[in-house]
Amino acid sequence: MTPLSINAERLLGRLRDLGQIGRDDDGRLVRLAASDADRAGRDALVAWIRAAGLEVVVDRIGNIFGIWSNDANAEQAPALLGSHIDTVIDAGIYDGCYGVLSGLEVIETLKAAGYAPTRPIAVAAFTNEEGVRYAPDMMGSLVHAGGLSVDEALATIGTDGTVLGAELERIGYAGTEEPGFLRPYAYVELHIEQASVLEREGVSVGAVENLQGISWQRITIEGEANHAGTTPMAMRRDAGHAAACVVTFLRDRALNANSPTVATVGCMSFEPNAINVIPSRAIFTVDLRDPDGERLRTEEAALADYLKELAASEEVTIAVDRLARFEPVTFDRNIVALIEGAARERGLAVKRMTSGAGHDAQMIARIAPAAMIFVPSIGGISHNPREHTPDADLVAGANILLDVVARLAAR
Amino acid sequence: MTPLSINAERLLGRLRDLGQIGRDDDGRLVRLAASDADRAGRDALVAWIRAAGLEVVVDRIGNIFGIWSNDANAEQAPALLGSHIDTVIDAGIYDGCYGVLSGLEVIETLKAAGYAPTRPIAVAAFTNEEGVRYAPDMMGSLVHAGGLSVDEALATIGTDGTVLGAELERIGYAGTEEPGFLRPYAYVELHIEQASVLEREGVSVGAVENLQGISWQRITIEGEANHAGTTPMAMRRDAGHAAACVVTFLRDRALNANSPTVATVGCMSFEPNAINVIPSRAIFTVDLRDPDGERLRTEEAALADYLKELAASEEVTIAVDRLARFEPVTFDRNIVALIEGAARERGLAVKRMTSGAGHDAQMIARIAPAAMIFVPSIGGISHNPREHTPDADLVAGANILLDVVARLAAR
Repeated sequence: MTPLSINAERLLGRLRDLGQIGRDDDGRLVRLAASDADRAGRDALVAWIRAAGLEVVVDRIGNIFGIWSNDANAEQAPALLGSHIDTVIDAGIYDGCYGVLSGLEVIETLKAAGYAPTRPIAVAAFTNEEGVRYAPDMMGSLVHAGGLSVDEALATIGTDGTVLGAELERIGYAGTEEPGFLRPYAYVELHIEQASVLEREGVSVGAVENLQGISWQRITIEGEANHAGTTPMAMRRDAGHAAACVVTFLRDRALNANSPTVATVGCMSFEPNAINVIPSRAIFTVDLRDPDGERLRTEEAALADYLKELAASEEVTIAVDRLARFEPVTFDRNIVALIEGAARERGLAVKRMTSGAGHDAQMIARIAPAAMIFVPSIGGISHNPREHTPDADLVAGANILLDVVARLAAR
Repeated sequence: MTPLSINAERLLGRLRDLGQIGRDDDGRLVRLAASDADRAGRDALVAWIRAAGLEVVVDRIGNIFGIWSNDANAEQAPALLGSHIDTVIDAGIYDGCYGVLSGLEVIETLKAAGYAPTRPIAVAAFTNEEGVRYAPDMMGSLVHAGGLSVDEALATIGTDGTVLGAELERIGYAGTEEPGFLRPYAYVELHIEQASVLEREGVSVGAVENLQGISWQRITIEGEANHAGTTPMAMRRDAGHAAACVVTFLRDRALNANSPTVATVGCMSFEPNAINVIPSRAIFTVDLRDPDGERLRTEEAALADYLKELAASEEVTIAVDRLARFEPVTFDRNIVALIEGAARERGLAVKRMTSGAGHDAQMIARIAPAAMIFVPSIGGISHNPREHTPDADLVAGANILLDVVARLAAR
């Protein structure tokens, strides 16, 4: 008998529709956590979940759950699917949304097929996975897993000076349920790879067995403002130049490390930021990642040592704030094996791999067996409007998710 | 007989008073051109000029003139004194204001002493000398000298998106007089050194005989936004890293040039400016200065060559906008000699020197004999709230200006 399959048209249509919600005046997709655009995206998702006949639950950190249960299985721990629908600035339409909409699609398909699961199946959209507006990223799933208190998270001040809790209230997604109320039997997250390994190797499905560690820091360098025309080069305490030295140090070190280490300075600002004044202050962020926990600590230590030298040689003072720190994560062997098996049964090439990005799955892995399914990203491009995955791969990935969840929910 | 001297208390008092006008919520002095704070400073200056019994004239670019003439000398070309009262962000109280208030002080002193000059004596406060809000800097004096059309200048868009002409109208300083209406017989500008040469050598007066050339450019680097966690270092087109390379290139080259060349990157911004996204765009400014015109061109060419290499090696595109360009200026020998002589007569150590900063005097030098008088800046600190010159030096400098102007106006 031919295997059950998801409704490709419905899934792809919703992906396109959600991708049009939250466009700014320049047509850029900007759906930052707890913004008006995020509200519009959440409203669309909730409408689809309701239309599918699922129960909608929103918790205090704004995580949205669509739960399919019945009198027979309501007491069992549910199989949970999910990801996020918040985006970066000028984002693509797949990152996160693909996993949430596929989770809903899988439940609707099983429901329509008269499938009777042993346990409930739920789909989750976690708040503020990107962390662009509020740090840390993966916040909603971190709170759900008990790694951050909900009150501390709600008090987070955003890059725009807003408070997350107040913004969730404002957009109507400050729920009443305590985060963590739903303890999953297992968690599976379907996501685009955001790198080009699968595309380069011509493999259509990735069985993600682990995830690299992440270190986020904010560095503030204080020098001395002075006249750009009259201050000899040797007498300057230029915070901007010192910041530039850190940027090149991190890049050169990671580039020559011959390891998977990646280092990124994504945010940068100078003060007073005037053309004819030597910068008195530079504030910037450092994003360090490595699949090996020991190597990640080594990279952090190398940066700390360099900052010490720099402070002395440039006569500047340097302050470091830790914004987020996550150890590498190993996913559940059994679920990874289920993903591999499901792909093979559908005749798809599958590859065990490491996730370079942080995902909600790494948080939920703290409280339940978890794993991820990746599909190819063309050119490895993500966090960019040119982010793309062919429809056939999107549909194939959702069908793997369907097969894996059907098995998990039958246990 | 003891020489005539200025009223030290009145001059120092006005310097302190003007320095309190335009403080922001953090107590920082921020009197950007054509802002509400600038209006308040202009109102105070105009009140002092009127109280001194001088005629107040405001031209179309907002330059303020206080003119002392009589029926006997009204037809003669006036001796002009002046500088500016706009400031940088978080400024000191001396830069510019000292020259304007000393010019007024000198006229009041001569007037009170019953001195009868052969020609009118006027004091000018030129619009937007700092160029922080509107480029180019030294705009008011440039327009006065015919180097920039008043209509082009009034159409300038500010860093805050405002239009200079509209802002001058708003604050009530869009005058009716055509810029350049006053063609001076000679121009003398008294200013703080903004460097530490005089202090280090224990000299109290600088007779400024020339001024270094200035090159301002805005550089925009376009790379590709991508995921900070999944994009291998070797596959990145990081606009932020490329910008950092330019900052270190400029600093290292100027530091090792063994020449007076100075290079500064004062403004910097990344886009999308998100912690987990590789910067797609970096926009920054370059301020290059050198007293030798040929060497300044060499430095500009070296930067242009480096940007070409960088664009190729980093696979980024680089665009350069020229914001301002001024050749080095040589001041009038006779006025410089007058300054030297006046200092010696007062028993003050005097030194011939080069100005590292741009000043309105370099613009007026295009249409009249001009020179500058410098007084020491403690630690060479300027464009900083710690900018300081001892009262005794401030008074001595104003008395030199008094002596020089008395002689010029007697011719």
